[in-house]
Amino acid sequence: MKLYSYYRSTASYRVRIALNLKGLAYEYQGVRGLRKGEPDFTRHYHALNPQGLVPLLVDGDVPLSQSLAIIEYLDELHPEPPLLPREPAARAHVRGIALYIACDIHPLNIMRVRKYLTQPLGHSQEEKMEWYRHWAVTGFEALERMLVGSPHRGKCCHGDTPTLADLCLVPQVYNAERFKLPLDAYPTLKRIHDHCLTLPAFIAAQPHLQPDVSEYAPNEEY
Amino acid sequence: MKLYSYYRSTASYRVRIALNLKGLAYEYQGVRGLRKGEPDFTRHYHALNPQGLVPLLVDGDVPLSQSLAIIEYLDELHPEPPLLPREPAARAHVRGIALYIACDIHPLNIMRVRKYLTQPLGHSQEEKMEWYRHWAVTGFEALERMLVGSPHRGKCCHGDTPTLADLCLVPQVYNAERFKLPLDAYPTLKRIHDHCLTLPAFIAAQPHLQPDVSEYAPNEEY
Repeated sequence: MKLYSYYRSTASYRVRIALNLKGLAYEYQGVRGLRKGEPDFTRHYHALNPQGLVPLLVDGDVPLSQSLAIIEYLDELHPEPPLLPREPAARAHVRGIALYIACDIHPLNIMRVRKYLTQPLGHSQEEKMEWYRHWAVTGFEALERMLVGSPHRGKCCHGDTPTLADLCLVPQVYNAERFKLPLDAYPTLKRIHDHCLTLPAFIAAQPHLQPDVSEYAPNEEY
Repeated sequence: MKLYSYYRSTASYRVRIALNLKGLAYEYQGVRGLRKGEPDFTRHYHALNPQGLVPLLVDGDVPLSQSLAIIEYLDELHPEPPLLPREPAARAHVRGIALYIACDIHPLNIMRVRKYLTQPLGHSQEEKMEWYRHWAVTGFEALERMLVGSPHRGKCCHGDTPTLADLCLVPQVYNAERFKLPLDAYPTLKRIHDHCLTLPAFIAAQPHLQPDVSEYAPNEEY
């Protein structure tokens, strides 16, 4: 399998954790050529993935887009350890947390949106950060309430072993730390995040350990 | 089952189609009280759904949030007719289309984001519409390419019967029409949309047929 990834992409980070938890070897392919607009790489990548986003997992000759679709695919083909509970309402609860992060926090704060706020909309760096904070705080406050109120919460979002929810939560907290969002108001999120980052599969998936880190300047923003 | 819904919410629309396809009866509960900031309703709703978004399906005493999590739940408990194909790569393909709409088109153009662009960001109605068009066009162009390139496309996104992908596509096209986005460049999307809207489950789920339409002025925008 080959994973097209960008080290700081939180959606790519989710899939890296899943691959590690399942013990699946994969080839890491950075997408620096896409960022730089290299015509050959861009053409090749858009043919594989018309969405033009990362991550993309190519399994054999089948390209699979969208991180949550990829993770469900891996979970169906490689059921151990399971990334969803067995009972339908519990599965819906876990998917509900994952999708809240994936649909209602993440998309508002990704690179292409931050770029659009600067150009063409002409917002300052400070206004862009206020936008970031607004959606992150709205999302994290709701997530904290959801998790505090859940009788199923354990060391992880649901029980004591990682599920799809944790695979979304940990990268989102990484992203918040990257953008210097104070996390004191979200002790439950932070505790789950810190626990997950004691697990080898999460540790190895962290952005700063990916092979394409060195291709980017430390503060390079895309 | 009780569905908390807002007639024009495309995420609610997805769930209404799923309930209809499965032949499941449900009680429709509009959320006008939430929009109006009625304290009792808002408190009640936030206790059920800390995210504060629609839709929410309450099955027995279990509240389920996030439209795609709800639809997967319904599909697991009521497998006929199936809303996902059987084979893992095909399931991933269908989920990839659905998630592209749910994560990369829809969240950028929902009411709370449109409102934020007006206040506090101070953008004009025209700038807000340009924002809408930018993300909708980017998304629809990619979707059209994905569907044109798919060997599995039939009358619907995948084969000849509706899947999760169609349940996301049809509401997104409705939303585009509502905001007067020209659709000539997306004949494949339009053809699938038009086919689905010949099916009773889709017809009955349409926004203008929901019980809470009459609670809103025709051009009332939230």
